Amino acid sequence: VKTERQNGRVYLIGAGPGDPELLTLKAVRALGEADVVLIDDLVDRRVLEYAPRARVVPVGKRGGCRSTPQQFIERLMVRLARRGHVVARVKGGDPFVFGRGGEEALVLAAAGIECRVIPGITSGVGVPAALGIPVTHRDLARGVTFVTAHTRDGNGPDWAALARTGTTLVIYMGMQRIGEIAAALGAAGMSATPAAVIERGTTENERSVIGNVANMAGLAAAAGLGSPALIVIGEVVRLARTVESAPPQRLSA
Amino acid sequence: VKTERQNGRVYLIGAGPGDPELLTLKAVRALGEADVVLIDDLVDRRVLEYAPRARVVPVGKRGGCRSTPQQFIERLMVRLARRGHVVARVKGGDPFVFGRGGEEALVLAAAGIECRVIPGITSGVGVPAALGIPVTHRDLARGVTFVTAHTRDGNGPDWAALARTGTTLVIYMGMQRIGEIAAALGAAGMSATPAAVIERGTTENERSVIGNVANMAGLAAAAGLGSPALIVIGEVVRLARTVESAPPQRLSA
Repeated sequence: VKTERQNGRVYLIGAGPGDPELLTLKAVRALGEADVVLIDDLVDRRVLEYAPRARVVPVGKRGGCRSTPQQFIERLMVRLARRGHVVARVKGGDPFVFGRGGEEALVLAAAGIECRVIPGITSGVGVPAALGIPVTHRDLARGVTFVTAHTRDGNGPDWAALARTGTTLVIYMGMQRIGEIAAALGAAGMSATPAAVIERGTTENERSVIGNVANMAGLAAAAGLGSPALIVIGEVVRLARTVESAPPQRLSA
Repeated sequence: VKTERQNGRVYLIGAGPGDPELLTLKAVRALGEADVVLIDDLVDRRVLEYAPRARVVPVGKRGGCRSTPQQFIERLMVRLARRGHVVARVKGGDPFVFGRGGEEALVLAAAGIECRVIPGITSGVGVPAALGIPVTHRDLARGVTFVTAHTRDGNGPDWAALARTGTTLVIYMGMQRIGEIAAALGAAGMSATPAAVIERGTTENERSVIGNVANMAGLAAAAGLGSPALIVIGEVVRLARTVESAPPQRLSA
């Protein structure tokens, strides 16, 4: 009698914003079970030490650069899982916050493949924290909103509505449109609102500028900041660098 | 010659939404260094196995129940750190997302005490994921907003502005006002928008109901859901339970 082929499965794993120590224990366990790891470009390769048994397939998707098409990645996951492999799909941040994990989960569900999501620290929380910025604060922000600068339909978000919410605004993948964003938020009365632009937050290569909505694009350009970067807008940005006893560092770029 | 007294310090640690396996490696390391752990009520005690050397002080702050005043906790942290202790302040979720970590960091900075923030998986990301709900999705949500139902000034958020943003709305600590929230969002045209109410998400005791803005308060009451719970509102809620190959479970309460 032949043994039944073990069913494969896919872990969609969030590796956090950059610092490999921000991996969760659950992610470490899943990596240890993995036969194959599909790892995004921006994820620190040191996380692979937790996947000693696995074959590693880089599946970069850098904005604007040569990249692995999303459909190819999805087909590869399905094929590997159907062969009985345990697949760890490792993404930066959280798989369900601008990570296309939702799309991948739907593809896997449609193919009848077991998929388990392991959340990660999303950049919008972890990156501001590294500068001492709490994205919410009782006296300064009613909440926090995460958006991307451009959406599938080609339109940006409704910046005027976002301004009216009184929440801290955290913009992912916004560097290519930082000028437009500043103009739209300025028109909504936020020119003087504090703003931070943070490149490669939580990593050894973190660089940042702190100013306001009106001057953030100029400061970021002068410092040569590029993608991947996060833009944080709100009164909470005033609290930057108060967390550590180290002296304030307003322009670390 | 007497040895200089070592300076104490405080780690503000996010323990994640409930599941102790969602602790980060950085949090585990900090717990291992701790002399004293100040642990919130809602944090699973299993995380203490990573703090074998530490004295444990429970500092619960349950909404509406007997609780440790915030000022007492802040003074205790300062006093312990001044005595040279390494203090691990462990909170549910992330310390900087409705965790009052920003306030604590300011108190510590004013007292000249070193404070390091270790982010955690915030409930607004991790809890929906446990039900298979991605808080963002290219076709369904322009982003995600985290708010609390009541703010320090006694007013609620501007629900009409939030509705206009087109983002998924995740409401923390909203159970006491779920009827008001439903009415406000209904008036903003969102009555038919899918909604989930999730109690103790990611834990063994997770219970949830899925409906829409108009019926969510009734469903939650019928199921006996109480605090702590998260309310998730947006088209992405339609994707609940598609992540696992297990059959859809619309009312798990």
